[in-house]
Amino acid sequence: MNVSVIGLGLMGMPIARNLVKAGNIVTVYNRTRNKSAELVSEGGGAIIAETVGQASHNEIVMTMLADDDALEAVAFGEGALLDTLPKGGIHVSMSTVSAAISERLTEAHRERGQYFVAAPVFGRPPAAVAGQLVIVAAGDPGAIVRCEELFKAISVRVFDMGTQPVAANVIKLTGNFMIASLIETMGEAFALVRKYDIAPDKFLDVLTNSLFASPVYKTYGGIIAHEQYEPAGFKLPLGLKDVRLAMAAAEAKNVALPVGSLVRDRFVTALALGYENKDWASIAEIIAHNAGLE
Amino acid sequence: MNVSVIGLGLMGMPIARNLVKAGNIVTVYNRTRNKSAELVSEGGGAIIAETVGQASHNEIVMTMLADDDALEAVAFGEGALLDTLPKGGIHVSMSTVSAAISERLTEAHRERGQYFVAAPVFGRPPAAVAGQLVIVAAGDPGAIVRCEELFKAISVRVFDMGTQPVAANVIKLTGNFMIASLIETMGEAFALVRKYDIAPDKFLDVLTNSLFASPVYKTYGGIIAHEQYEPAGFKLPLGLKDVRLAMAAAEAKNVALPVGSLVRDRFVTALALGYENKDWASIAEIIAHNAGLE
Amino acid sequence: MNVSVIGLGLMGMPIARNLVKAGNIVTVYNRTRNKSAELVSEGGGAIIAETVGQASHNEIVMTMLADDDALEAVAFGEGALLDTLPKGGIHVSMSTVSAAISERLTEAHRERGQYFVAAPVFGRPPAAVAGQLVIVAAGDPGAIVRCEELFKAISVRVFDMGTQPVAANVIKLTGNFMIASLIETMGEAFALVRKYDIAPDKFLDVLTNSLFASPVYKTYGGIIAHEQYEPAGFKLPLGLKDVRLAMAAAEAKNVALPVGSLVRDRFVTALALGYENKDWASIAEIIAHNAGLE
Amino acid sequence: MNVSVIGLGLMGMPIARNLVKAGNIVTVYNRTRNKSAELVSEGGGAIIAETVGQASHNEIVMTMLADDDALEAVAFGEGALLDTLPKGGIHVSMSTVSAAISERLTEAHRERGQYFVAAPVFGRPPAAVAGQLVIVAAGDPGAIVRCEELFKAISVRVFDMGTQPVAANVIKLTGNFMIASLIETMGEAFALVRKYDIAPDKFLDVLTNSLFASPVYKTYGGIIAHEQYEPAGFKLPLGLKDVRLAMAAAEAKNVALPVGSLVRDRFVTALALGYENKDWASIAEIIAHNAGLE
Repeated sequence: MNVSVIGLGLMGMPIARNLVKAGNIVTVYNRTRNKSAELVSEGGGAIIAETVGQASHNEIVMTMLADDDALEAVAFGEGALLDTLPKGGIHVSMSTVSAAISERLTEAHRERGQYFVAAPVFGRPPAAVAGQLVIVAAGDPGAIVRCEELFKAISVRVFDMGTQPVAANVIKLTGNFMIASLIETMGEAFALVRKYDIAPDKFLDVLTNSLFASPVYKTYGGIIAHEQYEPAGFKLPLGLKDVRLAMAAAEAKNVALPVGSLVRDRFVTALALGYENKDWASIAEIIAHNAGLE
Repeated sequence: MNVSVIGLGLMGMPIARNLVKAGNIVTVYNRTRNKSAELVSEGGGAIIAETVGQASHNEIVMTMLADDDALEAVAFGEGALLDTLPKGGIHVSMSTVSAAISERLTEAHRERGQYFVAAPVFGRPPAAVAGQLVIVAAGDPGAIVRCEELFKAISVRVFDMGTQPVAANVIKLTGNFMIASLIETMGEAFALVRKYDIAPDKFLDVLTNSLFASPVYKTYGGIIAHEQYEPAGFKLPLGLKDVRLAMAAAEAKNVALPVGSLVRDRFVTALALGYENKDWASIAEIIAHNAGLE
Repeated sequence: MNVSVIGLGLMGMPIARNLVKAGNIVTVYNRTRNKSAELVSEGGGAIIAETVGQASHNEIVMTMLADDDALEAVAFGEGALLDTLPKGGIHVSMSTVSAAISERLTEAHRERGQYFVAAPVFGRPPAAVAGQLVIVAAGDPGAIVRCEELFKAISVRVFDMGTQPVAANVIKLTGNFMIASLIETMGEAFALVRKYDIAPDKFLDVLTNSLFASPVYKTYGGIIAHEQYEPAGFKLPLGLKDVRLAMAAAEAKNVALPVGSLVRDRFVTALALGYENKDWASIAEIIAHNAGLE
Repeated sequence: MNVSVIGLGLMGMPIARNLVKAGNIVTVYNRTRNKSAELVSEGGGAIIAETVGQASHNEIVMTMLADDDALEAVAFGEGALLDTLPKGGIHVSMSTVSAAISERLTEAHRERGQYFVAAPVFGRPPAAVAGQLVIVAAGDPGAIVRCEELFKAISVRVFDMGTQPVAANVIKLTGNFMIASLIETMGEAFALVRKYDIAPDKFLDVLTNSLFASPVYKTYGGIIAHEQYEPAGFKLPLGLKDVRLAMAAAEAKNVALPVGSLVRDRFVTALALGYENKDWASIAEIIAHNAGLE
């Protein structure tokens, strides 16, 4: 199948690579060209596009970008995605972006006779490399069916959330809000047990082998128990960005997220204290400090 | 083995029953005698004690009581547990109680040449019935070894948290604080997605089949998605009690738990609104109301 | 003196009127022309401008507008204020707007050889009518001196906050954040005392005749004690807007405002519950409801 | 008039002294006798009592003690106040204590045919010295009338809050909760304006000469603007104690005080960071630190 991937970052690159491996002809565009060149040099059906426009002629164009601004530039720029995607073509947006831009894109593509499918993913770069992402997709049912083979090449599971693309984005943002919340909660929990001279590792053992035996608790509990906040798996400013987007989506519907507010304030404090290069789980370090630890 | 069980509530009863089934001679005491009579009538090695004192002559005495007050009455009353337990005997406290009473009991038993083992459990009544509790134990290592066979009869796993009994209590309270926190977080999350017309069940499906695939998310996510707050699996005032105990344990060590404060306030509000017989997950209903739902 | 006033709302109208009374020739512009006509019909030196541009030829142009969007339209529109104000002219911005737009305007006016003075006011419409506003001004010292006579006509006091206009805006936003905070605090306080059967009026009497004997406590304590949330003196969505602007100014400098977050969430909840036409003090009604009152 | 004063601390001493000055015969008791001796040595009608019992024979006995424990010891101890106060005698409790102990004392005195008047005061030691306290009194109307002359000698104003003594205590606790809240709010406000290079003194000038022109804003705004947290006017642990008592009074009636929770957590953090000897306004220092200041 012919498909384009715009954005070859830590997530987009392995996605594109897995699509090539699965036998697709993949046109790739990245702001810095060397990423595209790297992929082409690996052989298989990768083709370099020199501009966003060149990458937008396929029936299906996937975008995997850093934030709203990057997506806006790629989609709305002159001669860019919206201008170039063929009628009946599908823009599959895999980035974690705002509910607002998702709604704008839904409308803009509809006006041009194109389809917009929101398909953000859960999973960190290693899962992308392994083709084991979880995809939450929403949009036109026929369009989603046309993406099925592509999704298979990069994920272990696709959740179909119906016909409104924004639903998928809201679920992704809500998921990240929930992770942020459990980081805060675990930060408080570890500070408490440490003050009672309980070894963090033993506490982690209890948590992750009983009620909380799930991937996120293992990942973030491990980071907090071992205080390994650098190198960052997911940098704190990105976490703040996603919590903010969840709160913005909530505020647009008059929903208060008090835990979101609390976590947002914690992230803001972390930035003031110089944590911009640490993992978002590093707010646990601030909590520990506030408890008089270390 | 000869063992006593004091307190035959929703948790103590199946624990005692499983100990009987495993071939032990179990002396049982309950404030209302009919519970004890029921167990004896089922046959096997159950013996009724008419007083706490009568139930305290065994080498190992387990208590499974509602709260600090009940435990205080059983342990410190005249002619009660502390007075009667033989030298070298073990008081195994399985209740969810305060860090403070655990420290007092540790000291009081030590002064009398007795052992105090804190062994609170994770698991709701069905897990107790199935003998599949998770036990978090702490205290004298030799004493814990002597309890091993008994623990096997009622649990799937025992975590040994070292020699300070209070550590086990703090872990139990911290665990319940973490559950309360995720209930609040899920309450906020479900309110948000419902405002975007996402079916709660579909959102639950995503959560519990990806990052949050753990027992507590399934249990509480299910309750919230289906808004089934009655009958209560764990009543709201008990949840408030445990969060308060976690915060008291934290405050004793100068640890702030902001998420705990937020959840505590939510439970207090729930009581003002008449939720005393609902499940503690019912705070999600208040969050939904505050978002303008229903 | 020749001066323009753009924006004849509840605040701008009495300001313009007082400037006329003080003997100035006042060119006025309002989006709906009838306001301007009303002022001219009262006699004195008022002149109608048909466009923003027409109102921007004076040496001093005051703007008193609802929000950032309105100010942006007036200042940055084609042929509007920035384009038309003479070199050396002064734009005196009295609106409660964001720190960000203040910084943009400072820069934009500087580039054109014009002056930007931020001069937001404390005081509600009756104070504006009485010419008893409090002005917090910041900007070029010479420019502020040139405004002195005008300020005298409309205020009882001018605080000079130095040469950076944004300082005045931040102080105004911080002041409104502080008022929002004390509304929340008084809401909680009144709920508490009412539950002890203390008459709200008697409690108000204690507050405002001892430690808290200041105008804002009298105003908002009175509203809360008498539960008179309609008609609104300052509508809840405006309060939310200002708290949001204070938080945005804070976040731009990595400052967390936890009380701001709490109040923001309260206002958002109030909107979900249909309070959009009530006074911002009406959050006290939600607090009372949450305490089981009424 | 014959009157007793039990407790000669920073507040009780000047109160007793002013009562002597006004011509009363004042029997004084203090746990450490030298305080009583000091007062007697100054001449006038002061008499040393060697025990609480000796100080409890007068018709009116005032207590001004540090906390619930001290009051409990004085009132409920064997041969102490409750045992000794004559029938028809009045216990005037001026301490800042819990709603719960006030309710217990109300009942205990009533059973013995004695009167209990709660009369906590607003004002710091200098106001006590100057005889300018503000008294919030509640209890039997006849009993309050009998105290009038005494109150005149020590205060500028008495608020009569009705017949339920607990009302006075709740108002005192609510007042202190409100002060704690404004300290937090001002801490956040000053951190914000400082990040915009606004001089704290200039901001203080605006606050206290406009909307917030009240004694508490002057006192605490001044402390925060000048960062003078030592020596403490009111130590942080006392502030925490009072906020806790306000929250306990609230929780007894199912009232959530979210601002109280936030402030409580801040005080707890302050203790963990070693602030136990600083003024309770010193939480502003933590807020400033969290904003990256200094």
